[in-house]
Amino acid sequence: MQHKDIGNTQCPIARSLDRVGEWWSILILRDAFRGLTRFDQFQKRLGIAPNMLTRRLASLVDSGLLERRLYSERPPRHEYVLTERGRDFQPVLWALLAWGNKHFSPEGTSVQVVDAATGEPADPVLVDRDTGRLLTEPQFKLAAGPAANERTRRHYAWVDAGAPPEQGEAAQAAGGERRVGGASKSQSKAGKQRKTGRGS
Amino acid sequence: MQHKDIGNTQCPIARSLDRVGEWWSILILRDAFRGLTRFDQFQKRLGIAPNMLTRRLASLVDSGLLERRLYSERPPRHEYVLTERGRDFQPVLWALLAWGNKHFSPEGTSVQVVDAATGEPADPVLVDRDTGRLLTEPQFKLAAGPAANERTRRHYAWVDAGAPPEQGEAAQAAGGERRVGGASKSQSKAGKQRKTGRGS
Repeated sequence: MQHKDIGNTQCPIARSLDRVGEWWSILILRDAFRGLTRFDQFQKRLGIAPNMLTRRLASLVDSGLLERRLYSERPPRHEYVLTERGRDFQPVLWALLAWGNKHFSPEGTSVQVVDAATGEPADPVLVDRDTGRLLTEPQFKLAAGPAANERTRRHYAWVDAGAPPEQGEAAQAAGGERRVGGASKSQSKAGKQRKTGRGS
Repeated sequence: MQHKDIGNTQCPIARSLDRVGEWWSILILRDAFRGLTRFDQFQKRLGIAPNMLTRRLASLVDSGLLERRLYSERPPRHEYVLTERGRDFQPVLWALLAWGNKHFSPEGTSVQVVDAATGEPADPVLVDRDTGRLLTEPQFKLAAGPAANERTRRHYAWVDAGAPPEQGEAAQAAGGERRVGGASKSQSKAGKQRKTGRGS
């Protein structure tokens, strides 16, 4: 793990992220929400290597999460501003924050979502917009949607049947749809029984 | 980017993650929610290199998101099962999914959250548990909580004043609290003006 020390800060988002992976891009987004826009601001706030920051910012711009804007003509200088797509990432950040607060804040809450007018803390939960029902299993589940392809439909049928499919997504990405398409549920189960190797 | 092809799958979570960073651990969690428990299942489903998967699983176990359980004594074999902490990560995954569906699914929705009884699609939004109010800016914001240290309080005071702080979190993690503690808002601004280097 490259960024182990992120977990030492008080930010529950950073603590969550430290548990789950490599997360410079999310930390950049987090700080963009806090009003940071310039390379030097991100660099100093995060203590990130300049070449890494350059790559991450370029990737966020490429993905349409940040927009690169000229703020000075002489000399030419750019800032990085959240797009609508970037702003829509906020629920993910705040859900991460709530999770970090619950599980990785033994000393109590250091950062929280509050009502901007009253300062009253909020308790972020994910619900269905129309009904307000809490989105938790087993009342809710993932399922194939209208644009699902055959493989996705088959996958969720398998999940519902309690028999997780086994073929790799990478195989599909490499054009393996046809190759694995003939595997029936029973074949998949047989494969599972044959293969014992790792996992111990 | 190491895992570029993840974005080619239909899963909107994978598409979201592909935009934001390195995410094997989240994909492992996603598949653990779908019922996968064994090394070979994860390995085949994700097409991930065995040594990488071994590391990620160990890290998820260390972080208390997965529990390693013996499922066969002869030969000894283990499976990986979500803990309560791991299960609590679900709102993050479903928020990622909603974001991916909105922004990275030009062909329509392939995977969605549905009512398990009726199959009716849900529209995941983040709200305050008590009041049901939608958690969006500017009605809500992040703020220092009761366990915030001096630096965190100062940081959010700065954010509220529209003057993002600049010192690195890495500097703090390395014991830099005292070193940067004397920086006033005006000093911070002066520093910003002095430093023009990158960002262009």
